[in-house]
Amino acid sequence: MKTKHLLTLGVAAVAMTLPLAGFAQDDPAPVPGTDASSDSIFIFNSLLFLVGGFLVMWMAAGFAMLEGGLVRSKNVAMQMTKNIALFSIAAIAYWLIGYNLMYPLGNWSVGTDETGGYLGAFGVAVLEAVGVSRDTADDYGYASTGSDFFFQLMFCATTASIVSGALAERIKLWPFLIFVFFLTALIYPIQASWKWGGGFLDTQFGFLDFAGSTVVHSVGGWAALAGAIILGPRIGKYASDGKVQPMPGSNLALATLGTFILWLGWFGFNGGSQLAMGTVGDVADVSRIFANTNMAAAAGSVAALILTQIMYGKVDLTMVLNGALAGLVSITAEPLTPTLFMALVIGAIGGVIVVFAVPLLDKLKIDDVVGAIPVHLCAGIWGTLAVVLTNSDATIGGQLISIAIVGVFVFVVSLVLWVILKGIGGIRASEEDEIAGLDVAELGMEAYPDFTKAS
Amino acid sequence: MKTKHLLTLGVAAVAMTLPLAGFAQDDPAPVPGTDASSDSIFIFNSLLFLVGGFLVMWMAAGFAMLEGGLVRSKNVAMQMTKNIALFSIAAIAYWLIGYNLMYPLGNWSVGTDETGGYLGAFGVAVLEAVGVSRDTADDYGYASTGSDFFFQLMFCATTASIVSGALAERIKLWPFLIFVFFLTALIYPIQASWKWGGGFLDTQFGFLDFAGSTVVHSVGGWAALAGAIILGPRIGKYASDGKVQPMPGSNLALATLGTFILWLGWFGFNGGSQLAMGTVGDVADVSRIFANTNMAAAAGSVAALILTQIMYGKVDLTMVLNGALAGLVSITAEPLTPTLFMALVIGAIGGVIVVFAVPLLDKLKIDDVVGAIPVHLCAGIWGTLAVVLTNSDATIGGQLISIAIVGVFVFVVSLVLWVILKGIGGIRASEEDEIAGLDVAELGMEAYPDFTKAS
Amino acid sequence: MKTKHLLTLGVAAVAMTLPLAGFAQDDPAPVPGTDASSDSIFIFNSLLFLVGGFLVMWMAAGFAMLEGGLVRSKNVAMQMTKNIALFSIAAIAYWLIGYNLMYPLGNWSVGTDETGGYLGAFGVAVLEAVGVSRDTADDYGYASTGSDFFFQLMFCATTASIVSGALAERIKLWPFLIFVFFLTALIYPIQASWKWGGGFLDTQFGFLDFAGSTVVHSVGGWAALAGAIILGPRIGKYASDGKVQPMPGSNLALATLGTFILWLGWFGFNGGSQLAMGTVGDVADVSRIFANTNMAAAAGSVAALILTQIMYGKVDLTMVLNGALAGLVSITAEPLTPTLFMALVIGAIGGVIVVFAVPLLDKLKIDDVVGAIPVHLCAGIWGTLAVVLTNSDATIGGQLISIAIVGVFVFVVSLVLWVILKGIGGIRASEEDEIAGLDVAELGMEAYPDFTKAS
Repeated sequence: MKTKHLLTLGVAAVAMTLPLAGFAQDDPAPVPGTDASSDSIFIFNSLLFLVGGFLVMWMAAGFAMLEGGLVRSKNVAMQMTKNIALFSIAAIAYWLIGYNLMYPLGNWSVGTDETGGYLGAFGVAVLEAVGVSRDTADDYGYASTGSDFFFQLMFCATTASIVSGALAERIKLWPFLIFVFFLTALIYPIQASWKWGGGFLDTQFGFLDFAGSTVVHSVGGWAALAGAIILGPRIGKYASDGKVQPMPGSNLALATLGTFILWLGWFGFNGGSQLAMGTVGDVADVSRIFANTNMAAAAGSVAALILTQIMYGKVDLTMVLNGALAGLVSITAEPLTPTLFMALVIGAIGGVIVVFAVPLLDKLKIDDVVGAIPVHLCAGIWGTLAVVLTNSDATIGGQLISIAIVGVFVFVVSLVLWVILKGIGGIRASEEDEIAGLDVAELGMEAYPDFTKAS
Repeated sequence: MKTKHLLTLGVAAVAMTLPLAGFAQDDPAPVPGTDASSDSIFIFNSLLFLVGGFLVMWMAAGFAMLEGGLVRSKNVAMQMTKNIALFSIAAIAYWLIGYNLMYPLGNWSVGTDETGGYLGAFGVAVLEAVGVSRDTADDYGYASTGSDFFFQLMFCATTASIVSGALAERIKLWPFLIFVFFLTALIYPIQASWKWGGGFLDTQFGFLDFAGSTVVHSVGGWAALAGAIILGPRIGKYASDGKVQPMPGSNLALATLGTFILWLGWFGFNGGSQLAMGTVGDVADVSRIFANTNMAAAAGSVAALILTQIMYGKVDLTMVLNGALAGLVSITAEPLTPTLFMALVIGAIGGVIVVFAVPLLDKLKIDDVVGAIPVHLCAGIWGTLAVVLTNSDATIGGQLISIAIVGVFVFVVSLVLWVILKGIGGIRASEEDEIAGLDVAELGMEAYPDFTKAS
Repeated sequence: MKTKHLLTLGVAAVAMTLPLAGFAQDDPAPVPGTDASSDSIFIFNSLLFLVGGFLVMWMAAGFAMLEGGLVRSKNVAMQMTKNIALFSIAAIAYWLIGYNLMYPLGNWSVGTDETGGYLGAFGVAVLEAVGVSRDTADDYGYASTGSDFFFQLMFCATTASIVSGALAERIKLWPFLIFVFFLTALIYPIQASWKWGGGFLDTQFGFLDFAGSTVVHSVGGWAALAGAIILGPRIGKYASDGKVQPMPGSNLALATLGTFILWLGWFGFNGGSQLAMGTVGDVADVSRIFANTNMAAAAGSVAALILTQIMYGKVDLTMVLNGALAGLVSITAEPLTPTLFMALVIGAIGGVIVVFAVPLLDKLKIDDVVGAIPVHLCAGIWGTLAVVLTNSDATIGGQLISIAIVGVFVFVVSLVLWVILKGIGGIRASEEDEIAGLDVAELGMEAYPDFTKAS
C-alpha cells in the first residue's frame, strides 16, 4: 500500500489544466507549514456547518419522497403534508425550546457539568448580532452561532422525519403533529443534551456516538415503535391466520429518489459532525468520513441485494433501498475511525439486519409501513455497538448502557405521550377513512387524481 | 439568554472526535485575531457565489417539479419543456445582453451614478482570463468575475421560472419563450440595475431589497399577472354562474418535491446575497440568513396549515406548499436583520397572505395555475415593506415608491409585449388543443403514457 | 467590453447589506497581496473535492431518474434496482481494485512514467490516518487523500451509470451487475490511468481531456454500444419493414428531473476537475468552468429545441433533455479555455449531434433506450476534438489517436466480456419476461402498482 496517492495526481492535475502562470511567476509561493488564520478557521468551521446543514435539510425531502413512494397512492398527499409540516414544526420547536435544552452551556436545570447534566436550560435560541467582529462574535475561536444553530436544527428535524414513515396510512394528521412538537421541543433535545450537550452520558459513561446512530436514529426509531404499538397495524395487514398481506408502495421511482437524496444528505450529516474543518487534521477527517459513509451505504445496499436474491430467489428493491439506508445508519455512530474495509463490514451488517428485522416486525404484528424501525432503530443499535470495533475509546458497557438509557427514556415518554393523545382525541383515523385513504378523507384531495385506478 | 452557545458545543465536539493530536502537538496554534489573507478572502467570496449559484440553479428544477405537479397530466410534458427551455434561454439572454445592462459599472446608457442610472450598458458578458494572478484578476479585492456572473445569472433565470407556472396549460410554447427572452435580456436586468447595479432606486430612494422580494419575485409576479390578464383563464375554470371549477394538480408528490427543492435552493438565494464571506462578520451574517430563511419558510408553512384547517375544516396541501414558498419570498427582502422571532412573524404573514390571495385572484377571474402571483407578487410586496420592521435604514416611503416604480415598469412593458405577441401570431393554444392537452397537441407526446385514464 | 465588472457590484453589495462595522473599524484590513496559508490551500483543495464529489454522486440519482422516466412503466423498478446497485458495486470495486490501477503513482505493473505507463498498481485503496497533522498528511502541499478518493470514485461510478440506460428493458440484472464490476474495477481505471494517472496517453500523445468527455463519457458509451450490439434490440422495436416502433418513456417529469440533477451535478464534475482552488487563479478558473458548463448545457438544449421544431414541426422534449446533456458532455473535455461564446458553440453542436445520432442509431437497429450512445459517445468524441478549437496545447492528431485507442480498448474488452457473459448464463431476459416487464418477471414487484393500465 502506498501512502502518497496524491503525488501522481498532482502531476496529472498539472497536465490536465493550463499552466497557472500567475501562481508560479507573479505571486510568491505560500510559506510552507502555515496555519489558516484565526479568521479563516472561523469561516471554514462555519462553512462546514452551513454546507452540512443544507445537506441535512435536504434529507427532509428524502424522507418525504421515500415515504411517499412506499405508501399506497391513496395516502400520498397526506404523507407529503405530514413531512413538510413536521419539518416546519421542528424548526419552530427547536428554536423555541429545543436548542437551549440541548446545549445548556453549563446552565443545567437539573445537574451540573461535573456531577452530570440531566436537564438543560429553557429559553428561545438567540442568534449572534448582525455584522459581528472578532471581539463581538459569540465564539470567535470556533464558528458562528447561526451556523451551529442551523446545523443542529436539521438533526432534530431528522428525528421527526423517521417517525412519520412508520406510522403512515392510519395516523391522524393533528395528533401526529402534536407528537412531533413534543419530540422536537423536548424528547430529542433532552436526550441529545446527555451526550452532545456535555451531559451525564458524555461525562460519566464515556458514551461515543459521533453523528447520532443512537442520539438521532434510534431515538426516531423508539418513538416510532411506541407509536406503532399504540396505533396498531393497518386494517388487513395481518390476517387472522397469520398471513402478512403485502401492501406495495405506490411509486418505487419516488422511493428510490428519496434514498438517493438521503444518501447525499448523509455526507452533511456525518461529515458535518466533525464540527470543524479549519485544520489539516479536521478536513482530512471530514474526507475520511465522506469516503467511509459512502462505503457503508454501498455495502448495505449490496448486502441486501445478495441476501434477498439468496433468500427469496428474487432481488427486493425496497430491501435494497433500506439496506443502503441501514448501512448509512450503521456507520453514523463512528464514521471516522473505520478503515474503508471496516466501513464495508459495518454497513453490510446493517443491510443484513434490515433483511431479517423487517419480517421479524411483521411476526410481532408491528406494522411499520416503510421499514423505519429496522433501518433506524435496529441498525442504529448495531452501529452504536460497532464503535467498539474501531475506536478504542469506546467500551461495550458504556455503549450498551447508553443505548438502554436513551431507549428507555424515549420509548417510555413516547408511549405515555401517544397514550395521552389517544385518550384526548384519538390518534387513529376511522376505519372508513383508512379504507378510503387519508388523502380524500382528511384532506379532500388526491395526490394523483389523473392516474389512480378506480378501486 | 446566553450569548456563548458554542463553548459547550466546543467541548462536545472534542468529546465526539478523536483527539486531534496533530493540531495541539505538532503544529503551532494559529495566531489569534488574524485576518484571512487577501487571497483567502477572494476565494471565500468566489466560493460563496459558486455554492450559492448552484443552489439557485437547482431552484429551476424546483419550479419545474412544482409546476409539473400542479398542472393536469395532459400538460406536464409541455410544462417540463417550458421550464428547461426558459432556463436555457435565460442563460443565453443574460450573457448576450442582460449582465452588462444590470451591472453597467458606471457606463450608463441613460443616467449616471451621481444623477441616477436608468439604462445600463450594452455588450456581451466577458469572463476574466484563464489562470489570472492577483494582478490580472478583474477585481482582486473581491471575487472572481465568473463566479459573480454565474450567481447573478441564476437570479435572472428564477424570474422567468416564476412566469411559467401562472400561464400554464394554455399558453403556446414559442410566444412564451420569446417573452422569456425579452424578460431575461431586458426587463429583469434593466429594473435590477436600478437597485443592484447602483441605479436611481439605490442612490436616490434608499430602496432596500437584500435578495430580491421585489427585484426578482415581484418582477416575475408582475410579468405573470400581465400575461394572465391578456391570456385569459383556462376553458371551464370560471363558470358563468361565478363558480370556480377546481382543476387539481396531477402529482402532489412532485409538487412537494419542487417545494423542498426551492426551500433548499433559497439558502443559496438569500445566503449568497450577502455577497461575501471572507470575514468573521460576513460569514456570521450568512449564517444568520440561513437560519432566518429557514424559519420564515417554516412559519409560512405552519400558518397556511393552521389557517386552512380553521377556514375550511381541512388542511390544504397545496396551500401549505405555497405558504412555505410565500414565507421564503417574504424574508427575501431582508433575511439578515430580523431576529428568529421576527423571521417567524414575517414568514407567517406571508403564509396568511397566500391563503387569502389565491381565492381573491379567482374572484377577479385571473387564472394563475400554480399560485405564482400570490406567492411571488403579493408576498414579495409584503416582504419588501416588512424591511422597515427590522432595518432602520429602510423607509416605508422609499420602499413603497420603489415597489411602485418597478411594478409599473414591469407590468406595463410586459403587458405591451404580451399584446404585441398576441397580435403577431397569437399566444393562446386553440380551444381544441387546450382541451386535448398541450402535450399531445403541441408536442405530440404524453408525460405519463402508461398511467393516464382515458378522458 | 469592460474588465472590472465587479467594482460596481461591490458598491451594490455595500448598499445591500448593513455596514459591516466590525470589519472596517475593529479589525485591521488584511494585508493586500497575501497568499492563502499552506493549511488553507490544503483545506480549499480538499473542500473542492468534497463538494465536487457530492455533486457528482448526485448525478447517480440523475441517471436513475432520467432512465426511470424513459423506460416503460413495467421496467421502472428494475431500472431503479440497477442504478442503485451499480453505484454501490462501483464504490466497492473502485476501492478494491480501481483506485490504485488508475493512480499507480509510478508503480506501474506494465510501463513506467518515463516510457509510458500501461497498467497501474494492484491493491486496495487506503485512506490517510485519522487526525493527520501537516507532517503526517499524505500530501500536505495539496489535498487530503480521502477527498481525492471520494471525488475520483464518483467519476468511475458515472461511467457505469451511462451503460445502464442504453441496455434497459431487456438485460438481466445479474449479468449487468457483473459487467459493472469489471467496468469499474478494471476497464475504466486502466484507460483512465493512461491519461489521468500519468500514463502513455498523457506523456506520449499530449492527450487533453479536462474532465472526461473521452475518459468517462465515451467510455460509458463504448461499453454501452458493445452491450447493445450483443444484446440486440427490444422485441418489436424494429419491424421487419424497417419501421421503428416508438416506445415512449413512462414518466417525462421524472426524466426532466433527472436531467436537471445531472446539470447540477456537472458543476461538480467539471468544476471539481480543476483539482485545486487554493489560489486566485484556481478559483477564478473554477468559476469560468461553472459559467462555461452552464452555457454549453443551455446551448445544447436550445439547439435541440429549435432543430426538432424545424425538422419535425414539433418540439421533442426528450431531444431537448438529451440536447442539454450532450451540451454538457461536449464541454467536458475543455470547460476552461473557451469563452462563453465558444462554450455556446461547442454545446450547441453537441445538441445538434444528438438530434441526428438518435435516428441514425435506429437505422443501424442499435436499440439505445435512453439515447446514452448519442449523448455520451457521439458528443463525447465531438467534445474531445473540440479541445483544439480553444486550447493550443491540444493537437487534432493527439486527440484523434487517443479517442481511437481508448475506444478500441473499451469496445473490444467490453464486447469480449458481454460475449463471455452471454455464453455463461445469458444476458437477455426471456421473451416472455421482456413482454411481461422485468419488474414483475425478475423482481416480482411493480413500480407503480396503483396506476398502470391493464395491458
